[in-house]
Amino acid sequence: MKKEPGKTILESVKNFKGLAILGEAEIDELCCDIRTRIIDVTLKNGGHLGGSLGTVELCVALLRSFNPERDKIVFDVGHQTYAYKLLTDRLDRFHTLRTKGGISGFPRRAESCYDAFDVGHSSTSISVALGFAKARDLRGLGHEVVAVIGDGSLLNGLALEALNNVSACDTKLTIVLNDNKMSISPRVGGMAEHLARLAVSSPYKRFKQFLKDRCRNMLRGEWYENKLGNIKTKLKSLLQPTNIFEAMEISYWGPFDGHDVRELERIFEMSKQYSKPLLIHVITQKGRGCADAEAMPSVFHGVGSGTVIGHAAKSAPKALPVDWSQAVADNLIRLAEHDPRVVACTAAMADGTRLNGFKEKFPARFFDVGIAEGHMLTYAAGMAAGGMMPAVCIYSTFLQRAMDQMVHDICMQKHPVLIAVDRAGLNGEDGETHQGLLDVSWGRGIPGLTIGVPRDKVDLAFMMDGWHERAIPMTIRYPKGKAPEAVARDAFAAPATPAAWGRAEVLREGAAEKDVCLMGLGCMVGAVLEAADACPVSPTVVDLRFAAPLDWETIDDLLARHALVVVAEDGYRDGGVGEAIAARAASLGLDCRVLPVAAPAAYIPHASRGQQMEEYGLTASAIAALVEEQYRDYGGIGTAASG
Amino acid sequence: MKKEPGKTILESVKNFKGLAILGEAEIDELCCDIRTRIIDVTLKNGGHLGGSLGTVELCVALLRSFNPERDKIVFDVGHQTYAYKLLTDRLDRFHTLRTKGGISGFPRRAESCYDAFDVGHSSTSISVALGFAKARDLRGLGHEVVAVIGDGSLLNGLALEALNNVSACDTKLTIVLNDNKMSISPRVGGMAEHLARLAVSSPYKRFKQFLKDRCRNMLRGEWYENKLGNIKTKLKSLLQPTNIFEAMEISYWGPFDGHDVRELERIFEMSKQYSKPLLIHVITQKGRGCADAEAMPSVFHGVGSGTVIGHAAKSAPKALPVDWSQAVADNLIRLAEHDPRVVACTAAMADGTRLNGFKEKFPARFFDVGIAEGHMLTYAAGMAAGGMMPAVCIYSTFLQRAMDQMVHDICMQKHPVLIAVDRAGLNGEDGETHQGLLDVSWGRGIPGLTIGVPRDKVDLAFMMDGWHERAIPMTIRYPKGKAPEAVARDAFAAPATPAAWGRAEVLREGAAEKDVCLMGLGCMVGAVLEAADACPVSPTVVDLRFAAPLDWETIDDLLARHALVVVAEDGYRDGGVGEAIAARAASLGLDCRVLPVAAPAAYIPHASRGQQMEEYGLTASAIAALVEEQYRDYGGIGTAASG
Repeated sequence: MKKEPGKTILESVKNFKGLAILGEAEIDELCCDIRTRIIDVTLKNGGHLGGSLGTVELCVALLRSFNPERDKIVFDVGHQTYAYKLLTDRLDRFHTLRTKGGISGFPRRAESCYDAFDVGHSSTSISVALGFAKARDLRGLGHEVVAVIGDGSLLNGLALEALNNVSACDTKLTIVLNDNKMSISPRVGGMAEHLARLAVSSPYKRFKQFLKDRCRNMLRGEWYENKLGNIKTKLKSLLQPTNIFEAMEISYWGPFDGHDVRELERIFEMSKQYSKPLLIHVITQKGRGCADAEAMPSVFHGVGSGTVIGHAAKSAPKALPVDWSQAVADNLIRLAEHDPRVVACTAAMADGTRLNGFKEKFPARFFDVGIAEGHMLTYAAGMAAGGMMPAVCIYSTFLQRAMDQMVHDICMQKHPVLIAVDRAGLNGEDGETHQGLLDVSWGRGIPGLTIGVPRDKVDLAFMMDGWHERAIPMTIRYPKGKAPEAVARDAFAAPATPAAWGRAEVLREGAAEKDVCLMGLGCMVGAVLEAADACPVSPTVVDLRFAAPLDWETIDDLLARHALVVVAEDGYRDGGVGEAIAARAASLGLDCRVLPVAAPAAYIPHASRGQQMEEYGLTASAIAALVEEQYRDYGGIGTAASG
Repeated sequence: MKKEPGKTILESVKNFKGLAILGEAEIDELCCDIRTRIIDVTLKNGGHLGGSLGTVELCVALLRSFNPERDKIVFDVGHQTYAYKLLTDRLDRFHTLRTKGGISGFPRRAESCYDAFDVGHSSTSISVALGFAKARDLRGLGHEVVAVIGDGSLLNGLALEALNNVSACDTKLTIVLNDNKMSISPRVGGMAEHLARLAVSSPYKRFKQFLKDRCRNMLRGEWYENKLGNIKTKLKSLLQPTNIFEAMEISYWGPFDGHDVRELERIFEMSKQYSKPLLIHVITQKGRGCADAEAMPSVFHGVGSGTVIGHAAKSAPKALPVDWSQAVADNLIRLAEHDPRVVACTAAMADGTRLNGFKEKFPARFFDVGIAEGHMLTYAAGMAAGGMMPAVCIYSTFLQRAMDQMVHDICMQKHPVLIAVDRAGLNGEDGETHQGLLDVSWGRGIPGLTIGVPRDKVDLAFMMDGWHERAIPMTIRYPKGKAPEAVARDAFAAPATPAAWGRAEVLREGAAEKDVCLMGLGCMVGAVLEAADACPVSPTVVDLRFAAPLDWETIDDLLARHALVVVAEDGYRDGGVGEAIAARAASLGLDCRVLPVAAPAAYIPHASRGQQMEEYGLTASAIAALVEEQYRDYGGIGTAASG
């Protein structure tokens, strides 16, 4: 094709419809253009760099072989789709990646008709693709359905359940296994070993390719291919053991070079002729084309905005701020140093949850189970039943994958597992799929679960000690970002004197009787303290500290003594702590208005965490304004509530 | 051993400690005794007959080979442990099975020190056993850890995640795969096929057994066995393809006859000498020793109390009452007859959810995915994205396994999936693990989810039609038991005139101003109507109908017009609808006391559903008494609430 003057190949191609006429050299140039654009925008805006760089050729080949206007290309997790986005009408908007009002870092049907299914959590693609395929069959349509799944995602129970169900579904489906030998942290498990063995077993691949090529170029090629089936199977068992996919009645082709567009296209074209479930194993390199990302794939899996590569990148691991995750990990190390029963678990998130230090110090007591949240919790429960004190670090949004395990295996049996709920609350740029807004409303309903929400590192240490002493099922939730050393403490850090276990803490007594009380949970305690200063009166300020069980002794007294209580929390309002406290007032028949301040019942799209907090009134100024509004509307609070 | 006079072998043996001295014939007699006892008690009290009859010899062999005082025997699901219970100090109490205050139908640590881990949901055993094994290693102990898992349970994502993690855990663990070729309904999926192939591949088994026997009887047997390892592997690849377990680096022995105590003991003894993860595949027959249960394994998986075998049993499938499950299934058939987009899914519960009729009528539109709740929901979401209208029937307690899929794959994307939540609320004899008390409090927090709770079959049909017309993500929850044709409707059944979509329905207006309003949800509507008759005043009675979104227009008006509102629901109080309504009153600053009536924050043990409802005040008389108490305490409601 003719490059337009002053434009790159990518700009000239515009979208996937322009791909067909590209020559070999132009494809290479296009891939270069795509990589440059991905690196530029991702380093500026933050995002998932490594995965997206690894799938450039794969996306190009998919879009040359399949037609996204008709075929369904279902990505897994979706953080590897930047190249796909660039080629499906989002080139002009790509610089807005992950910014407020801009395009999402994940597939979103609302953003483009070429995104077949919304995703952000791992391992959904095979189930979804099976659903698309079955719907196609029932509707008598003939389009292709392709699931693109990473090797890490494949090890999650959801994907394994789907793999197991493929043969029973009796439909045509192509699964592209994008094997970069990483999930987020290096993958673990028996199947990973199995994949590795498949990946190096080239004799069989060459033989298969040879047979395929021969058959393809013959008249009645498919007939011959079928005829050869039996011989092939026999030969195969000599060349290579039957693999796990074929044991599940899914044909296996591969492995292939995931950076060779021509090879991938050949295979994809062949897959269209194939009428049974098929898994195509392609090998890619995470971070491909960016030296730093290739060298440090875990670090460059996801990068913050304003990341610099080169010298700065090399020191990136050291430059990580002392955030909540690190503070939790530090406390775990402290506990583990004195108690050999303390062990730590992660589901492929050793970097994100900052457990790498623990792993280095206590390699035998650190467990990365891969992307297997459910197993992680039940495994921890088993260890607890066997006499250990397991701590599990997990993002709030991913804990949603393991709720039954929390109820049935941990809390019902009172096993002393600590679940450190990272990235709780609003989460910024990852958007809808990554918000951590449900853990409190879901957790509150679980009998026997203690939910601690520390406002600073002092209380975090106290709560972790408390879990350890009491040996109870407990979650401790904390947001993304920096952990304050101390909030509203006279002597910073030492001596650490948090309130008693299970109790709320009145940080400031209000000036007037029957006036305003501001209650906050975790990161919102700072906000209500600040709001108190901006209020027309001098309110009582309270750190609730525990979301469950709530400290009713203190709260009942506060409800009785105040006319307006505002409860601020970084989670959904429905089922949240504010609702529980408001309900308490109504069931006691108290003369007190209770206003919860929390996230509304909505899926909150990407923007910075600050923008999201602002938008939903989770700021000091919004809380102060709410109190002022109550004054304005009712001419004084005490009057208002009793009138 | 000497049988005590007038006693059976089982009574003479007393517990597992007496097993060692039994001769071959006595063992057979013991197994007969156990079967008789299981059949007698289960038919009387209700319970899991088929599974328990299938594992009699397995439990005897486990207890002869392993020592439950030291070794950890971890059962999966746990409804196959009756023989184990009989032999571990619960013989005298076995007649109290599943009755209030009696022994549980599942393993319970609180009941016996020989129950290693509480369980009632499937597929936890491998994770738990891995945890026990790892704890053992870290603590420097030397006991055995055995997981006993069924072939159906093995296909759930949790078990598959655990299997995948076994090799990375690098510990000694024995997994006994109890393969009865059923899960609850006949199992499905690629791995089931694989197991079936393994089960019939006897040449390899014979060869392996031969090698083992030879090695075992030699001096330095283990050394030879290791030496022979390579040859064995080579030979094996000729005799049988490498199986899925060995692909995951778990040694596979089998298949063996699960009803041959001697063979099982030999294998278990050998397994103790083996130092690596090992899966022992045993074949058992569900319902073994009871002709009816052998012939109709699905029907006799779980039986109700007072079941009769023989003639009555043969008509059992017909005698099933028109319960809520059947009513839902009938409506699905009605919808499917007019709309080819309507499909139905179950996770191995076609009998329990009464979808067998749908399956017969629309075999191509019925999907049993096996025990794979997560996959089922995401698969349904995929089908919905592909243009279908999937309905999923699932027990409330098992929906806990698929919460993230409900959020991330269904509600966030507004896919029109109907989740029919069966066995919602208190569930009677299955106890703690099977209560359906969380679906409302967890569901209310999910943005975009509509939760319908019909009080009778009229509203059930209306709600299912409404889902179909509106094409929205929706749950409809209903309890165990009979579905009333019509509750509080003037003309029974025809014409069916439910209130408008999304609205609560005032069934009866109260006599006095500022008095009492009784609100009920689903099955509690009947109870509040009855309570209204028994109240000192004539209360307003309301059917809330939808738990989410709540009909605030109607509710706000009711809160403003009444001094006392009682909200009765069959779920947990924390996060429930009563709490939401109470919170609403407090946030509006209304002069109204709101009392939720719901289950307390506790794991509620087995008893009849009626006993449980009684115990927690979910009855008409308890609600009437609550209203009366308010009158007595405050001398009239209007006065009380404003005072």
